[in-house]
Amino acid sequence: MVDEPIRVGLMGLGTVGTGVVRLIEEHQEDLVHQTGKPIAIEKILVRDLLKERPLAVDPDLLTNRPEEIVQNDRVDLVVEVMGGIEPTRGYLREALENGKHVVTANKDLMAAHGAELLSIAAQRNCDVYYEASVAGGIPILRALVEGFSSDRITRIVGIVNGTTNYILTEMARKGTPFEEALARAQELGYAEADPTADVEGLDAARKMAILGNLGFHTNLSLEEVSVRGVSDVTPADVHFAEQLGYVLKLVGIAGLDKEKVEASVQPVLLPRSHPLASVDGVFNAVCVYGEAVGETMFYGPGAGELPTATAVVSDLVTVANNMQLGVTGRSTVTPYREKRMKGADEVFSKHFLRVRVEDEAGVLASLTQIFAEAGVSLEKVLQVPHCEDGEAEIVLITHTASQYQLKDVQFRMEELPAVRRLMSYYRVEGGEQ
Amino acid sequence: MVDEPIRVGLMGLGTVGTGVVRLIEEHQEDLVHQTGKPIAIEKILVRDLLKERPLAVDPDLLTNRPEEIVQNDRVDLVVEVMGGIEPTRGYLREALENGKHVVTANKDLMAAHGAELLSIAAQRNCDVYYEASVAGGIPILRALVEGFSSDRITRIVGIVNGTTNYILTEMARKGTPFEEALARAQELGYAEADPTADVEGLDAARKMAILGNLGFHTNLSLEEVSVRGVSDVTPADVHFAEQLGYVLKLVGIAGLDKEKVEASVQPVLLPRSHPLASVDGVFNAVCVYGEAVGETMFYGPGAGELPTATAVVSDLVTVANNMQLGVTGRSTVTPYREKRMKGADEVFSKHFLRVRVEDEAGVLASLTQIFAEAGVSLEKVLQVPHCEDGEAEIVLITHTASQYQLKDVQFRMEELPAVRRLMSYYRVEGGEQ
Repeated sequence: MVDEPIRVGLMGLGTVGTGVVRLIEEHQEDLVHQTGKPIAIEKILVRDLLKERPLAVDPDLLTNRPEEIVQNDRVDLVVEVMGGIEPTRGYLREALENGKHVVTANKDLMAAHGAELLSIAAQRNCDVYYEASVAGGIPILRALVEGFSSDRITRIVGIVNGTTNYILTEMARKGTPFEEALARAQELGYAEADPTADVEGLDAARKMAILGNLGFHTNLSLEEVSVRGVSDVTPADVHFAEQLGYVLKLVGIAGLDKEKVEASVQPVLLPRSHPLASVDGVFNAVCVYGEAVGETMFYGPGAGELPTATAVVSDLVTVANNMQLGVTGRSTVTPYREKRMKGADEVFSKHFLRVRVEDEAGVLASLTQIFAEAGVSLEKVLQVPHCEDGEAEIVLITHTASQYQLKDVQFRMEELPAVRRLMSYYRVEGGEQ
Repeated sequence: MVDEPIRVGLMGLGTVGTGVVRLIEEHQEDLVHQTGKPIAIEKILVRDLLKERPLAVDPDLLTNRPEEIVQNDRVDLVVEVMGGIEPTRGYLREALENGKHVVTANKDLMAAHGAELLSIAAQRNCDVYYEASVAGGIPILRALVEGFSSDRITRIVGIVNGTTNYILTEMARKGTPFEEALARAQELGYAEADPTADVEGLDAARKMAILGNLGFHTNLSLEEVSVRGVSDVTPADVHFAEQLGYVLKLVGIAGLDKEKVEASVQPVLLPRSHPLASVDGVFNAVCVYGEAVGETMFYGPGAGELPTATAVVSDLVTVANNMQLGVTGRSTVTPYREKRMKGADEVFSKHFLRVRVEDEAGVLASLTQIFAEAGVSLEKVLQVPHCEDGEAEIVLITHTASQYQLKDVQFRMEELPAVRRLMSYYRVEGGEQ
């Protein structure tokens, strides 16, 4: 029995796949201690059988036919690191229907079709684990599902996209404009050739949907996460944020309050004392707030060959142990909280606004009057005179106000002749929620 | 079946015990979702049946006879939050021998007799979980055991004692002397009337023994953790550390390197950029370094009624689920790595030294000559002239050197007539390990 291995079908041999092969080889002895059995790779699905690879792999293991994994009776467990939604979704459905357990790093797929896969898995007594899909090397899903199982999680605030965090860190440190910081991230391999999913916040939104669902036991869909990316962030925004004691980060926020949910990804001003404010470069971090536990934070590498592979192979160890104990199919936590999303009048925060105005007497008074009319009080006001010919800039941070109130302020501003342009506005994550 | 509850015998109704009762009551509905069964408290062991308590508890539940829990056929699971080593150890042995699962927050007991309890548990197919024993609300044991099961952990560096961290934070922020900061911590309830275990590092050492054993799969005993407390830390040390870009913290370090282990608790200088450097007040945080994952950090409340109770009740949920799946008794990971401790010539770090010398020409040269003779090179030297009549002070930070080399430097210093006194020395945790 001890010598009969757990047989893995690996789908994908890119960066993470290579890491998975390496870890299984190099840590084999430790893995046997953890699971009581050897872990063997039975087949590896690749697109190109002849491609040169950074790692020597037995060519007999390679296949370009997915059925050699998903229909293979010798495969116990499918590790999916090929990414994408289709055809991956079909492969994993078939694998689960054939009684194979699944470990995946695929946030796109889990955010969009997780419920479907988990439901097939439950019917077939199969496990589906996906720790690697959120925040690479940080075991945050385990923390939510098991570590805080006794608590009621009220808020999850995270930096869950390393690419944009690298870009914003460069902008803050060196005053680099966005386009230049992005180009640098691409050179270093931190950003893809098409960086849209990262830069526009979609990647982070997928991760927040997954975190929100596990944290709040609900069934948030990707479409319900409001998304705003970082491509219109300017060095001036970063600079003024800093002057007021804040750091600008792309932040995912999922909150549960009086049984109503909010979920968003957007550039946010964090006070310098916030645990996430010092998370720089490609690192990720997630703050979890619970009614009983209060504030916690989990920090680590958000991506990369070996960190992500660690999460995949740790899931593999869990499934291997479940298999031997005969308790697979329990990984799916059925959502039990009815989902009701907050409206714009129910999402509250402080706000940062930069307003370009005519440089003349009385403008500040009429501008602040607008906030008063919308019922929004101000915490900080910074006036920057003569920033251009005949123009001045006013930078404001409000006290807590709803998104609805902020929209109201914006409408009123358009009516004010002295206001030339609203340069930018951001949510401010404060201490006072 | 659904209505048959999991029956808990609670030993201890102090701060954490009260939190456990509260959580079980207030989160009952969520707990049923998590475990499929109600959680019921069957009996509570207290010292004084008549004591007034902050929480209304059915007096019929209270008992001062431990056998009403450990010999009670109706009790499935013992939650031990009474603390202390004896008689607690005997109670838990008996409970396990009677087939009852154990959840405990008792670091003293687990650090000293964990192996014994886990071995009885394994024989009886019982679970023993003890997440709450280290770093209160942070699910760090789960992260080590499950989250990083695929990785080889090389280093665990933690601030795991909130009392001393509060004291050092006060000293750094306000220049408060140690005794005054301790008195303030006692006023606030952060330090006990007898603060020895906290202040002298023993509490942190217990936690580091537990973390090291789980991280390295070995059987480190409490005696093998070298311990130095914070009672001789002065505001001047904190001040000079700050001037050189460091923060002084009580830090536990457990390392595994070429199959050899080091473990210590001591005041350490952390560079300001270190993830632990900004962990202030009573918060705890643990950095875990793995060969594959790299650097991760887990941050949260280190103590307190509800945070610690969260960890206890989350363990309770795990045991309840294991009971229903019939897979209890698997929580014990048998250590498989033979333990070999590093000698003083194998523990390397940078070092900080403050030396009081005669304020005369040539002293610096003869002092630095001593370091050269011991093979220790210097990274930073700060000379503070005329600090007292005829005396000057020299503050040094070395490059990486062994503990043995540092002792050698100290011996040589004693021979140098111009050296009046070695005021203090601390380990420096650097970026270069």
